[in-house]
Amino acid sequence: MDYTEDSITSYFAQAKRLNSDKFPIGIGDDMAQMQLENNNALISTDMLLDGSHFDTNIHSPENIGYKAAAVSLSDAAAMATVPFAMVASVGIPDWWGEEKLKELHSGLLRACSKFNCSLIGGDITSWQAEGKLAVCSTIISRPGETKPLERGGAKPGDLICVTGELGGSLEGKHINFTPKVNEALWIAENLSPTSMMDITDGLSTDLPRILNASEAGAVLESELIPISQAAENKKEPLSAALNDGEDFELLFTIPEKNSDFIKNADFKISTIGKIVSSKGLKIKNAQGQETEIKPEGYDHLG
Amino acid sequence: MDYTEDSITSYFAQAKRLNSDKFPIGIGDDMAQMQLENNNALISTDMLLDGSHFDTNIHSPENIGYKAAAVSLSDAAAMATVPFAMVASVGIPDWWGEEKLKELHSGLLRACSKFNCSLIGGDITSWQAEGKLAVCSTIISRPGETKPLERGGAKPGDLICVTGELGGSLEGKHINFTPKVNEALWIAENLSPTSMMDITDGLSTDLPRILNASEAGAVLESELIPISQAAENKKEPLSAALNDGEDFELLFTIPEKNSDFIKNADFKISTIGKIVSSKGLKIKNAQGQETEIKPEGYDHLG
Repeated sequence: MDYTEDSITSYFAQAKRLNSDKFPIGIGDDMAQMQLENNNALISTDMLLDGSHFDTNIHSPENIGYKAAAVSLSDAAAMATVPFAMVASVGIPDWWGEEKLKELHSGLLRACSKFNCSLIGGDITSWQAEGKLAVCSTIISRPGETKPLERGGAKPGDLICVTGELGGSLEGKHINFTPKVNEALWIAENLSPTSMMDITDGLSTDLPRILNASEAGAVLESELIPISQAAENKKEPLSAALNDGEDFELLFTIPEKNSDFIKNADFKISTIGKIVSSKGLKIKNAQGQETEIKPEGYDHLG
Repeated sequence: MDYTEDSITSYFAQAKRLNSDKFPIGIGDDMAQMQLENNNALISTDMLLDGSHFDTNIHSPENIGYKAAAVSLSDAAAMATVPFAMVASVGIPDWWGEEKLKELHSGLLRACSKFNCSLIGGDITSWQAEGKLAVCSTIISRPGETKPLERGGAKPGDLICVTGELGGSLEGKHINFTPKVNEALWIAENLSPTSMMDITDGLSTDLPRILNASEAGAVLESELIPISQAAENKKEPLSAALNDGEDFELLFTIPEKNSDFIKNADFKISTIGKIVSSKGLKIKNAQGQETEIKPEGYDHLG
């Protein structure tokens, strides 16, 4: 770990660090030390690449830093946990200088500080030649009032729900979305969800992950899918809502008896279908016709 | 976090996971859950890039995976802490397939399992085009019997010590070194060191980091620097030992009174100089002449 050493050290170390009492050793040593509330912690790591998750020709370093942190904060939300600390590693093009690094760093800080999450260290390396920007963010979170929410607990009869609206995120939302950390904690405390994740690769790819982990199937209702304005502007809005990546909305299941409490949320929740015992993912149109959905979201090994 | 989802999930999840009782939620969810021994943990992250830290034309994916994990394990050693868990993110060239990913993964596992460290998750993303391999490893460690060893505690009069031999690591050692985790714990328990770090960017660049953090200076003795065989084969062996990067040896300071205990170590420790109160880094030759050393190791923003 060499974040903030030497020339750039002073800048990063001076940046206001949230909750410094919880971090006896912070930026500028081989490791950062964390004092957690108890012995229970969660961890997730995400790699964001130029051309895949952002475009350095379009997005500013600040925007890229924000997104890198937001993606990891969204992982903390996906488990209904509370963000605690983050470290970030960057591989920078050899023509990048300190100024761009500082901008990237302020983007990371902007996202983290929204959720009282402390940026406590990182690593900066430059490509020798021709390498493009890579940003790896790793987040530590802690359980909230409820147990961390896994993907594997959906039961036949459960309702399938999503926050917000789906599709078309790449038109703009993906670079500046607000991770659904607070929404996830509310859902966990008020709706007794049986499974949860965030939608990163598209509903048609991510829902099967809940279904596989839960050994169940699902039937969606096309009329109930909340389609974003950006997706409505596309040729096939429903297809965009089902398959576009990077929604960063929450996908979760709740026992049907809890559906009455959804109206108490001060944010949008849509019930889009039901968990069934027979495997597979189907969608029912307004006429009641069912067709099978194949995952058409983003496949990183495709 | 999407390590081990879908096609490659089963392989990674099946790989023997050490200490699975400490990880209630493991590979295959949005986050992994850790049950630490207490509320105290350390974290470090490292980004390794093709052409900078390894060369995919020369090194196998297994070797690259091993090095990525070893570099982070070396951070845990640098603080005299005990490795606990690791996550790894990879940005892969678009022509990579599952086979290479599996090899990379077995390299990560080979390094981790040497130190009873569990690989509990990660993220795989592919570049859209022309991107080169980037591997980001993040390690969680816990304090050993002593407090984590920082860089800032060196006092005038302390002896400066290094493990092993320096220089020429890029001739081969860097890709297959054994992180000095056990050595660091022994040093911490037996020599009451006042500061410690691992040498990653070369002695002439890394020792000033201890000096800056400790607000002190140092005088090295050229005759005492342990020069590796690989450095001896170079034109200027001493210069190689001082400036070459990626030694991954431990650099530490101890009170002079503890020097008698060095002989109890079952590994090589060399005393190479002394901490002094006047700032700066100097080296004294056999004739007693002192010259100033400027950092000539690797500068990631150079």
